[in-house]
Amino acid sequence: RIDGARLTSRLAELSMIGATPEGGCRRLALTDEDRQGRDWLVAQMKALGLDTRVDAIGNIVGVLKGQQDGPAVIMGSHIDTVGTGGRFDGALGVVAGVEVLAALRDAGLTPKRDMAVIAFTNEEGARFHPDMLGSYVWAGGMSVEAAHREVDSDGIGLGAELKRIGYEGAEKPGFLPAHAYIEMHIEQGPILENEGGGLGAVTGIQGICWLELTLKGRPSHAGTTPMAYRKDPGLAAARINIFANELTKTIPNQLANSGVIRVQPGNVNVVPETVVMTLDLRNPLDAPLAKAEAAVRAFCAELAERDGIEVSFRDLARFPATPFAEELIAEVERSAGEFGLAVRRMISGAGHDAQMMARLCPTAMVFIPSIGGLSHNPAEFSTDDDMIAGANILLTTAWRVANA
Amino acid sequence: RIDGARLTSRLAELSMIGATPEGGCRRLALTDEDRQGRDWLVAQMKALGLDTRVDAIGNIVGVLKGQQDGPAVIMGSHIDTVGTGGRFDGALGVVAGVEVLAALRDAGLTPKRDMAVIAFTNEEGARFHPDMLGSYVWAGGMSVEAAHREVDSDGIGLGAELKRIGYEGAEKPGFLPAHAYIEMHIEQGPILENEGGGLGAVTGIQGICWLELTLKGRPSHAGTTPMAYRKDPGLAAARINIFANELTKTIPNQLANSGVIRVQPGNVNVVPETVVMTLDLRNPLDAPLAKAEAAVRAFCAELAERDGIEVSFRDLARFPATPFAEELIAEVERSAGEFGLAVRRMISGAGHDAQMMARLCPTAMVFIPSIGGLSHNPAEFSTDDDMIAGANILLTTAWRVANA
Ligand SMILES: NC(=O)NCCC(=O)O
Ligand SMILES: NC(=O)NCCC(=O)O
Repeated sequence: RIDGARLTSRLAELSMIGATPEGGCRRLALTDEDRQGRDWLVAQMKALGLDTRVDAIGNIVGVLKGQQDGPAVIMGSHIDTVGTGGRFDGALGVVAGVEVLAALRDAGLTPKRDMAVIAFTNEEGARFHPDMLGSYVWAGGMSVEAAHREVDSDGIGLGAELKRIGYEGAEKPGFLPAHAYIEMHIEQGPILENEGGGLGAVTGIQGICWLELTLKGRPSHAGTTPMAYRKDPGLAAARINIFANELTKTIPNQLANSGVIRVQPGNVNVVPETVVMTLDLRNPLDAPLAKAEAAVRAFCAELAERDGIEVSFRDLARFPATPFAEELIAEVERSAGEFGLAVRRMISGAGHDAQMMARLCPTAMVFIPSIGGLSHNPAEFSTDDDMIAGANILLTTAWRVANA
Repeated sequence: RIDGARLTSRLAELSMIGATPEGGCRRLALTDEDRQGRDWLVAQMKALGLDTRVDAIGNIVGVLKGQQDGPAVIMGSHIDTVGTGGRFDGALGVVAGVEVLAALRDAGLTPKRDMAVIAFTNEEGARFHPDMLGSYVWAGGMSVEAAHREVDSDGIGLGAELKRIGYEGAEKPGFLPAHAYIEMHIEQGPILENEGGGLGAVTGIQGICWLELTLKGRPSHAGTTPMAYRKDPGLAAARINIFANELTKTIPNQLANSGVIRVQPGNVNVVPETVVMTLDLRNPLDAPLAKAEAAVRAFCAELAERDGIEVSFRDLARFPATPFAEELIAEVERSAGEFGLAVRRMISGAGHDAQMMARLCPTAMVFIPSIGGLSHNPAEFSTDDDMIAGANILLTTAWRVANA
């Protein structure tokens, strides 16, 4: 069993780094706050005697050596946050993984296989694209070089920031072969709470499509240019946002969000020249997701034709719906059963590092409820009881898989 | 008569300061580019022997002493630009005023009254609000202290920037009493060109209402939050933009633009927390303008109620429709007639410093055609012939009024 007080106090410590006045965390990937969080994590891992290493994309790996060589049972998540982040998203999964290894050490137990915990770089995709970048590189989906070339919205390079904060490590991403991957995370949505609590055995992750649209019109004077003469990409962006929102009413389970809208030149009396906007489209099934994307593209083509706006697209992230391994989902359920905890199968709305690790090995996740379904919000909250329950399931499942 | 070559070459010199690769100018108020433009202008004025002074809001005044004391005949405009500015908007009026005084000096003519040219600070309203700020302060509509407290979108203060660039002058705004004000400007719209060319005798300026809206929703996770749970101020902003645009189809002569849209936190996968947007509403008549504003406010109240978005409003600028002085409009027509130039009466779609000066004295403007009706665009263009014609009308009108 894990030490609940130690788990929650470790999370509270990490929460101080990048704490915001609203009670949340702002620890954007590869910023100084992220560096401080990393320094704290490395110190925790070393204090536990874990073999602690950093790879070339900044993933931090702590290994508890097992009795035999060979692939490891890996736990993990991330410690970066979005701009309006909470204290639990990602951080909890990393801290829980550390606590699992601490509990085993305290109990004097050595697993058959290696067991490890990884904090992956830039999971949120809030600063650099795509999201789940660290685990994507770890799983071989993207080269280290390509990832280093990513830039944030100020044009600052990921590679440069990794160097600056001292987390461009010597290891090759993926250096630790994976036997299985298990991630604990907050649900970040309202389903478990609406179902009366209990935990989630995650069956997979829905498909994700992130598009960046650049809309070019013609800057002109807002006082002298007749409405019919205008080519206003701001108005086009508004129509696209509403169109994507309407799609969610006709395509089952479709989600859409426009989280970024940047207008140039951004003067009150200038009809905009350029708008850069993003769309985050998701669906549990790949086919309707593709249909939603095609509908957006067709709508933009019409707009371009009708309103004289140039529209160009760039993929920021594109991950198919990812089912998890049935045998590992069943292990999560079994562990919950041993603790007498209610558990329900559910799909994940959010992307997670588990979605990338599923490319390499059998993968599963444990979800705990998010109060009010809130996440990416400073008011994000989960109870101590649920955190402790989730960490015990993580421990039990990982331990069993590591010794099977 | 003015010296056409000298007029156009002065304008070309000023155009070099803040020149953009697209062939326009970016000389935002109180930036280093604006300072360079100001230094250039002051040197020009001093070289002509004008009594050159700067007031506490940075307005630059060059006076040609007349034979008698008393109020001056003032010409003027501005040298600041918007972010996607052209070479003519504002700069032409200032350079033409300088050329008028140069031509009089060359001809050895001394007017009865003082004649002056003023370059007013921050006419565009692109960096600081309201637009026409320098002439508004000059005309007593706003205190120097209040104007100094204005901040740009980065929170930098107008007073601090004035000091930094060395243009917080010793004079009190309005120190030079005004007998009449005449401003030459490009039309910035397509009317004159569509009418086959010729010049414009401006009868007045339409009403202007600039609103800043702050929309607050609830940040949440774009992958896990069911659409029905979201409070998305980005979507609200889109609906408001489209609503304002639709108003222009039902309220005669109504214009609307949303030139600023800033989204926080601005992450792909976060349903926005806050949007700050602006609306620029204009109408030649005050009553329909008030109706448009009321309709926008009512729509926002509905949205707030229905979608759970908090909406708050701030006035950035609010200037009523401003008729010019009939006797001075007629003088402009008479001057055009003397040169055999076609001239038509028209209302100005853009705000100008003349709108503020009309609070102090009889005011009029001369417009010259803008090719393609383009302005606030690097491709803004007017022909040499039209510039020279406009400057000759300015000279003739100002000279006659100064000697009447
Ligand atoms: N868990 C989480 O918030 N991941 C970020 C990637 C996503 O947007 O789903
Ligand atoms: N002339 C001009 O562009 N003035 C700026 C104020 C306005 O937006 O009308």
